[in-house]
Amino acid sequence: MPDTQPRADGHRVLADLHALRAFGAYKTGVHKPTFSEPHKLSLEWLVQKLPEAELSATIDGIGNVFGTSSKPGPKLLAGSHLESQNYAGWLDGPLGVAYALEAARVLNADASVNGAVEVASWCDEEGHFGHFLGSRSYVGQVTEADIDAARDRTSGRSMRDALADMGLTGRPRITTEPGRHVGYLEAHIEQGDALESGRLAIGVVTSIVGIWQYQINFVGEQNHAGTTRMAVRKDAGLALAKFCVAIDERFPTACGPRTVWTTGRITLDPGAPSIIPGGAEMLFQIRDDDPSVIARLEQLLRTMADEASANGPCTVSVTKLRTGAPAMMDAGFQDAIEAASKAVAGGRSIRMPSGAGHDAQMLATVMPAGMLFVPSIGGISHHWTENTADADIVTGAEVFVEACRRILGG
Amino acid sequence: MPDTQPRADGHRVLADLHALRAFGAYKTGVHKPTFSEPHKLSLEWLVQKLPEAELSATIDGIGNVFGTSSKPGPKLLAGSHLESQNYAGWLDGPLGVAYALEAARVLNADASVNGAVEVASWCDEEGHFGHFLGSRSYVGQVTEADIDAARDRTSGRSMRDALADMGLTGRPRITTEPGRHVGYLEAHIEQGDALESGRLAIGVVTSIVGIWQYQINFVGEQNHAGTTRMAVRKDAGLALAKFCVAIDERFPTACGPRTVWTTGRITLDPGAPSIIPGGAEMLFQIRDDDPSVIARLEQLLRTMADEASANGPCTVSVTKLRTGAPAMMDAGFQDAIEAASKAVAGGRSIRMPSGAGHDAQMLATVMPAGMLFVPSIGGISHHWTENTADADIVTGAEVFVEACRRILGG
Repeated sequence: MPDTQPRADGHRVLADLHALRAFGAYKTGVHKPTFSEPHKLSLEWLVQKLPEAELSATIDGIGNVFGTSSKPGPKLLAGSHLESQNYAGWLDGPLGVAYALEAARVLNADASVNGAVEVASWCDEEGHFGHFLGSRSYVGQVTEADIDAARDRTSGRSMRDALADMGLTGRPRITTEPGRHVGYLEAHIEQGDALESGRLAIGVVTSIVGIWQYQINFVGEQNHAGTTRMAVRKDAGLALAKFCVAIDERFPTACGPRTVWTTGRITLDPGAPSIIPGGAEMLFQIRDDDPSVIARLEQLLRTMADEASANGPCTVSVTKLRTGAPAMMDAGFQDAIEAASKAVAGGRSIRMPSGAGHDAQMLATVMPAGMLFVPSIGGISHHWTENTADADIVTGAEVFVEACRRILGG
Repeated sequence: MPDTQPRADGHRVLADLHALRAFGAYKTGVHKPTFSEPHKLSLEWLVQKLPEAELSATIDGIGNVFGTSSKPGPKLLAGSHLESQNYAGWLDGPLGVAYALEAARVLNADASVNGAVEVASWCDEEGHFGHFLGSRSYVGQVTEADIDAARDRTSGRSMRDALADMGLTGRPRITTEPGRHVGYLEAHIEQGDALESGRLAIGVVTSIVGIWQYQINFVGEQNHAGTTRMAVRKDAGLALAKFCVAIDERFPTACGPRTVWTTGRITLDPGAPSIIPGGAEMLFQIRDDDPSVIARLEQLLRTMADEASANGPCTVSVTKLRTGAPAMMDAGFQDAIEAASKAVAGGRSIRMPSGAGHDAQMLATVMPAGMLFVPSIGGISHHWTENTADADIVTGAEVFVEACRRILGG
């Protein structure tokens, strides 16, 4: 019976999370951008902690932290990330690392467990410098040229300078060792309210949606806001506003049941109160777990841009910045998480897709991968008020450890 | 017959403008922000030049330069400004100062002219630190607390620090001396294409439009762009786009024939690609020379905001940042400019309102004021390509000097 075996120590997990929360504390959340001082302190904290789980610690050349086991038998890789979005929550990332550390502490010392949990903290999941740089590096999809070109999206600091400040210049990057791992498991807060509103404890992730990202540019004519008559204006900002409204009207006719789309940033050029914007730019993204839906919406977007350019007075162009194929979670891992939830959480779980991207989608390209979610209070994330009840954090840790045990045992 | 009297020396005016252009040259324009080194050099250049016009020079405590005459008789104040917008044109400002200097050189030495032209260069017309700070100070509308609070909108440098760097700390500010001046005359490039397209040499300004400026804020709910369903979103950016489109649809039904309105800047909060904006802000301005039109439009704007808030899902609030009453130009000054244009420019003039703001609107609050425009090539201004044909510059100088002569004579 699993319940008589060593389980997660909830107090220890909460203590770890509060230790990590103290680095870069901001209100009740954290401000811990990639390669900031609080991020560095968090990585160093993990390096100090890994030996408690009979793991030897390494930080590689892109800032990934690995805890490696010399225990014989199969190895399960588990982890998440330690940096945060700017002025964001304390659990997005650290929760998955703390659970992985706890699983390794419980299971690696347990002689009855065949094999070990190894821990990874992936660098820059939050995309300050790029797009899943740490886990993408691990699966072999980041070149040196990519790193040369990467810059902090807030400060403009180059990634090379940041790596040098971290003391990581010249270190090798660690990539997948084929055959080493039976798979990868990651825990995360849900970042939605499905679990909370359903009074559930665990989300068993079935797939991670793909994210397609676009830059949409509007070119008009910059001019003086006082001396240029309305009739002759080519206002790129107004063209952008009309395009946003048109998306809102037309996308619902072509989307799937779970599609979401977002304009996250708008910039007018030159952005002065008395100048008619000659240029405007919006960052736009579409998410779905069905690539055919995305393809249809992208075609619609391009058709709308062509129509807007033809109608004038501004021209509209659509540039695809990023194509994110959806990732399916391993069926066996889903079963293991569900079984663990039955064993230690009264079965209060549901299978659900992840609308957010996670490092697990990168790992899924090279090994079986799974994810479990714990509830988010109010569904809030990427904000300093992000939170999860302590009891849910502890239950999640217990399910996570039990799922690891089952995956290694199976 | 005016034409036999001393006229403007076109070569001298062009030489002055090119001398000023050399300070802070940028491509074919200039980059001469208020209290920058090139601005300081420009002010010092003017101080050196004023004695050529029998004027004694002073720089006051806010960076206004005055050339004061001891000649008996009426005094006409004339001028403009010497700083530029960032990376902007060479004529916006300096043209009016060079014309004023030339009028003083021609008329102050002319014993047949009863009285003198005095020259002013107003500081920060372009609003790097505020809003017409120099001319507003002269008419008594700037407090010491205003100066304490003012900061460079680009660099953040405080105005006090900038004044200290200019060596102006502790100098008194010069304000209007009641009864000293018969009025104020200012020349400027048109910043529109009415003169060029009408093959005209001179615009006789009838009024300077008022500028009303608003900040419109949208409050929604910040959330994750992947995990928040479309149906429950409160996207402040989308609310802003809809509001811009609604303005575009409804303002034409309530505006006047010359009203213009502009959204110059849009900011989404937090402005990240994967976060639904919880806040959005737009800077919006309305210009008209009829305050009743503005009042009607402002009421419409507030009604639209209330409607949008009531309809949800975001709330919209309108804050008035600035109320700029329109300024009427003195009828006698208009007549003098028109007569001067007939005398020396073949009458190729037109009466027209100014859609842009100018120091003359501040001076108009304390004395009769007038403005004349010269053509802008392609109507371009606030850009380094701003230009006016040399022949038009020279014609403008001749009309300006003649208009000053007539105003003093009348």
